[in-house]
Amino acid sequence: MSFNTFGRVFRFTTWGESHGPALGAVVDGCPPGLTLAETEIQPWLDKRRPGTSRFTTQRREPDQVRILSGVFEGRTTGTPISLMIENVDQRSKDYSEVAQAYRPGHADYAYDAKYGLRDYRGGGRSSARETAARVAAGAVARAVIPGVRIRAWVEAIGGDAIDPAAFDDAQIDANPFFCPDAAAAARWEEKVDAARKAGSSLGAVIACEATGVPAGWGAPLYAKLDSELAAAIMSINAVKGVEIGDGFAAAALSGETNADPMRPGIAGPEFLANHAGGIAGGIATGQPIRVRAAFKPTSSILTPVQTISRTGEATEIATRGRHDPCVGIRGVPVVEAMVALVLADQFLLHRAQRG
Amino acid sequence: MSFNTFGRVFRFTTWGESHGPALGAVVDGCPPGLTLAETEIQPWLDKRRPGTSRFTTQRREPDQVRILSGVFEGRTTGTPISLMIENVDQRSKDYSEVAQAYRPGHADYAYDAKYGLRDYRGGGRSSARETAARVAAGAVARAVIPGVRIRAWVEAIGGDAIDPAAFDDAQIDANPFFCPDAAAAARWEEKVDAARKAGSSLGAVIACEATGVPAGWGAPLYAKLDSELAAAIMSINAVKGVEIGDGFAAAALSGETNADPMRPGIAGPEFLANHAGGIAGGIATGQPIRVRAAFKPTSSILTPVQTISRTGEATEIATRGRHDPCVGIRGVPVVEAMVALVLADQFLLHRAQRG
Amino acid sequence: MSFNTFGRVFRFTTWGESHGPALGAVVDGCPPGLTLAETEIQPWLDKRRPGTSRFTTQRREPDQVRILSGVFEGRTTGTPISLMIENVDQRSKDYSEVAQAYRPGHADYAYDAKYGLRDYRGGGRSSARETAARVAAGAVARAVIPGVRIRAWVEAIGGDAIDPAAFDDAQIDANPFFCPDAAAAARWEEKVDAARKAGSSLGAVIACEATGVPAGWGAPLYAKLDSELAAAIMSINAVKGVEIGDGFAAAALSGETNADPMRPGIAGPEFLANHAGGIAGGIATGQPIRVRAAFKPTSSILTPVQTISRTGEATEIATRGRHDPCVGIRGVPVVEAMVALVLADQFLLHRAQRG
Amino acid sequence: MSFNTFGRVFRFTTWGESHGPALGAVVDGCPPGLTLAETEIQPWLDKRRPGTSRFTTQRREPDQVRILSGVFEGRTTGTPISLMIENVDQRSKDYSEVAQAYRPGHADYAYDAKYGLRDYRGGGRSSARETAARVAAGAVARAVIPGVRIRAWVEAIGGDAIDPAAFDDAQIDANPFFCPDAAAAARWEEKVDAARKAGSSLGAVIACEATGVPAGWGAPLYAKLDSELAAAIMSINAVKGVEIGDGFAAAALSGETNADPMRPGIAGPEFLANHAGGIAGGIATGQPIRVRAAFKPTSSILTPVQTISRTGEATEIATRGRHDPCVGIRGVPVVEAMVALVLADQFLLHRAQRG
Repeated sequence: MSFNTFGRVFRFTTWGESHGPALGAVVDGCPPGLTLAETEIQPWLDKRRPGTSRFTTQRREPDQVRILSGVFEGRTTGTPISLMIENVDQRSKDYSEVAQAYRPGHADYAYDAKYGLRDYRGGGRSSARETAARVAAGAVARAVIPGVRIRAWVEAIGGDAIDPAAFDDAQIDANPFFCPDAAAAARWEEKVDAARKAGSSLGAVIACEATGVPAGWGAPLYAKLDSELAAAIMSINAVKGVEIGDGFAAAALSGETNADPMRPGIAGPEFLANHAGGIAGGIATGQPIRVRAAFKPTSSILTPVQTISRTGEATEIATRGRHDPCVGIRGVPVVEAMVALVLADQFLLHRAQRG
Repeated sequence: MSFNTFGRVFRFTTWGESHGPALGAVVDGCPPGLTLAETEIQPWLDKRRPGTSRFTTQRREPDQVRILSGVFEGRTTGTPISLMIENVDQRSKDYSEVAQAYRPGHADYAYDAKYGLRDYRGGGRSSARETAARVAAGAVARAVIPGVRIRAWVEAIGGDAIDPAAFDDAQIDANPFFCPDAAAAARWEEKVDAARKAGSSLGAVIACEATGVPAGWGAPLYAKLDSELAAAIMSINAVKGVEIGDGFAAAALSGETNADPMRPGIAGPEFLANHAGGIAGGIATGQPIRVRAAFKPTSSILTPVQTISRTGEATEIATRGRHDPCVGIRGVPVVEAMVALVLADQFLLHRAQRG
Repeated sequence: MSFNTFGRVFRFTTWGESHGPALGAVVDGCPPGLTLAETEIQPWLDKRRPGTSRFTTQRREPDQVRILSGVFEGRTTGTPISLMIENVDQRSKDYSEVAQAYRPGHADYAYDAKYGLRDYRGGGRSSARETAARVAAGAVARAVIPGVRIRAWVEAIGGDAIDPAAFDDAQIDANPFFCPDAAAAARWEEKVDAARKAGSSLGAVIACEATGVPAGWGAPLYAKLDSELAAAIMSINAVKGVEIGDGFAAAALSGETNADPMRPGIAGPEFLANHAGGIAGGIATGQPIRVRAAFKPTSSILTPVQTISRTGEATEIATRGRHDPCVGIRGVPVVEAMVALVLADQFLLHRAQRG
Repeated sequence: MSFNTFGRVFRFTTWGESHGPALGAVVDGCPPGLTLAETEIQPWLDKRRPGTSRFTTQRREPDQVRILSGVFEGRTTGTPISLMIENVDQRSKDYSEVAQAYRPGHADYAYDAKYGLRDYRGGGRSSARETAARVAAGAVARAVIPGVRIRAWVEAIGGDAIDPAAFDDAQIDANPFFCPDAAAAARWEEKVDAARKAGSSLGAVIACEATGVPAGWGAPLYAKLDSELAAAIMSINAVKGVEIGDGFAAAALSGETNADPMRPGIAGPEFLANHAGGIAGGIATGQPIRVRAAFKPTSSILTPVQTISRTGEATEIATRGRHDPCVGIRGVPVVEAMVALVLADQFLLHRAQRG
């Protein structure tokens, strides 16, 4: 099947293809009475918008969002919020080759195997363009949990990581890489340029932190906060790994090293470490939620790769068209959106159970 | 809330606490006519059963499963299959200290924050004992997809990894660590013994491979095969990271290195690599599905850790009782079960859509 | 909460308010490869469209549907199908009175109680205008189950019932009442005219029959075919009762009178009666599915009714604006759509379990 | 498929066959901290228990419920509550004939058509015995909404209705028919006796009223309170019709007659009628919720009925074994339970959205 809805009580459904007339999201279960306008959603879309620097795809999409329902006189009514973004810069003719041959690493072959046919224009439904709808929905989610601050950044590109000691929150929005380390941003500029010129692409690691999440949010066992975050993040195009807190590094620790000791604090317990990434037993501990995502390098590259045609013959493919040399960069607002969407849902679930 | 059901059409619901009278699973949506008996479920439980070596907890639980419904004259009837396992070796008095103070890294504090009260005996619902129910349900899932072979093993303990070149499938069941590398198993014996004697614990990395999954399974976008696997694996106690295919390593690769080139094969396309772990666009490609999970070290350790009491005072806690020095080891059959449960669900979803 | 999605694997989500810019449905889980075009959806919308006779509301809406996603080169792709209908004939100023006082029988007071605010224009989300989105989605459902014929008609208006002996399928589309009995249609013309002129309204009973549903569809116990139909029908505006087969009349029968005896037939069993309405144990028996729905009279009437204002004062309200004198009439295509949507879902569920 | 779970956030899953070792329910999503014990659940089961008078089946089942999880020191913990009832008085040999031939009106044929096999003993999963699990779950639901009073009764048996003017709440528990009208109860005694002696059975109408439901509960559009009630009630064995408020009678009214006028009251609005049964737009209005259910006569009767065998030959069947002459009677606590389960869910959903 296809399942284009995410969430338990705060739910969103996305629709749309890369080269169709439009794409959108229907957000259902949003509490009434929240202030919401297109102008509050647009900045998040602008952050994800393509064509803002030479380090992203050159497709020019204004990504203007329209609210079609669920808001009356500037406030949410509790009914479904329909958000629509028109596609304006499709160049479907770029994709004639993709129609005939499978791009390795891309969803082309898998979609044909699953559905027996596919909208090959720009990857159709499998295109990362769909994430615009998530970002729009994520903006609504943020309105549901105004006390929570969600902030993501790029931690590494092509294996070149930031220096944690150089972390500067103010830097994140000051460069085209959402990079908190100015020195790393400078290195990445060269690196991404080189990849782009070589017709290649690069992977990236995105980190995200959510602060202000109260202890208690989470819905064990099969909607654990970490489980929901893992599902949400892994559903983003190109993501191949998810970590909560120390993640794989924790697997190399001992019990006492990995413990997050507690002591009495002014407003509740104070933790002396956060290896757990703010989640224990699937429930928020009140510490910052920490998530990391591994983005593989873009599969659409100019470098020719060995492949087969739809009819099964051997061939090569070089993906022309306009593509991100490092799709992970624009993954930053998408990761933030998915974290917001999970947290809004968990907030409402917690409120259902505890009042 | 709590959400103790997993799956879309092949669903299971688990219940039970570590020290309650029993625990179990209700499996719903299972196709009719499949051969099923307690004797086919029991071996998987035996694999997870505690007390089989000195490297696992010494709690003695026979973990005998009973089928209470859904099977008639040896075959599934299409109605819910109720599976029950009685708890026989509870020693609740071991937990008086846990009742009063929070074990750092454990779910104690978070459960209190969420629910306002908790069954502290053996960790109650947050205990890894619940995974017995998953393993029982997983055995039913295997019956749904007999053509799929699911195999997990331990890849690293406490940061000490196997040598991939020494991988020997026959070794996995030949040592108490589910270790495919005999030399590593020998090292781990010392390592885990040392940790146990030191009142410490160790993390582990588990790898799992599923072969025989046809191209096309997967339910994009929000029930993508990788997204569902991530949710399933991350819902296992102690798991803090999930990777599909190359996972975080892919983030350091370039597009052409990470591509899985294709060429015509005898029965469909042949892939020349499997960086993607058998999943593209959330859909199986026909290659082996590859998943990895990071298990943190057991939080219940004898080494005292700084913490607070339920009433907020500073204290220390050393967790007595019987615990696994490396909970990741017994995670092997649990990871396999979760993968089986996801795949059985995806198989039925695919059949719904394609007939 | 609000839950604007219906279905298990064939799901649709509707959005939109009576006087917003547009309304629509997202249909998810549709099998790929089906022929689908706007021209196949439009006739069903035309059937429900207002303003086609003096017996329905005079609001002039062309109800032109647009397919925004999920269809490529005339065939469904297996991805979400977004359907949109623009509102063009809103006259929101008609509703200033409704903004200030509650129309008894309408959802005004309940929405305010639930949400603390409401879009009062034309009833906002509670308007029967939303059913246009259901009808559009229902047309997609019909494409999923081409072997099933679904046919509804009006059986009674204001307590005046058709003569079953005069039932003539050809009449149903030959009069503005979807009435299979020409004599009754003539009587209803006077009756509805009289009600309209008196500023009153009338209730109606709609019957629906689905033939070609194979024995076996149905998903007991809590997605029984009759249970899903009941939920679907009762979710339609103004419906207050649902019957399967003989319904309430069956409660007055004895076991042997109510039995549907069977005898061997040419292609499987032959039933000698259909008191059960084609469903036993929540599963289709292969006989025609028979459902009936009671529509209450439109609550929006010109006759003044005692009520209270938003601020709690006693007042009277006479609903101006354009309204159906008998909303049940236009319920006919809506009932058909809901039956189609349930059956498409049940077909896919059955296929999931039985292949 | 089969779907044995009901509810959105307050969910229950039932399992078990008529002649299996046990049956049960897992209740998930229950808020923590509620007082709950087996002694609070048992009285509701006792009300439904067979063999308490000559007007119900003579099968002797103590229906003792056991709580296996989710309750600690007398209070709910927020984790799944597993409830189990053992079957002790199965007489499977009574069913050899049912194994070979289909009882008209019963689910025998449909189950075979759906699943290809069936547990024929006592109807297996399609037996009304399953409703014991619902009643147990319903008792938990009642604990979630202590301010709501839910009360059902029998309104008619075999077409013989109570006199509304003679309604006496105190009578309901004073006779074996849950009949609020002493004179009707006397008549029914003869009527049911006669049917039983004749090897026949009778249908019944059950009415249910829930008071204390605050205005605002309900989750439009596809989890409307009336839609959920319709699904819940129609899922009960033998139910063929559901009405909210005036139901089908409303279809014969005019808009002004059917209106429920409002005037200012002491604590909010006061309604001058309740045709709507306490629900408008799918949302509670604060008036009593009124629901009616039509139960068909028991299909298992001693009178021989024409049918076919599993192999398709013509035959007759007379159902021996122990059966209720009027299954609607024992439907009373089941209807109450389903109403409680829906309302508990709606309460939590409302709390999620409004805090």
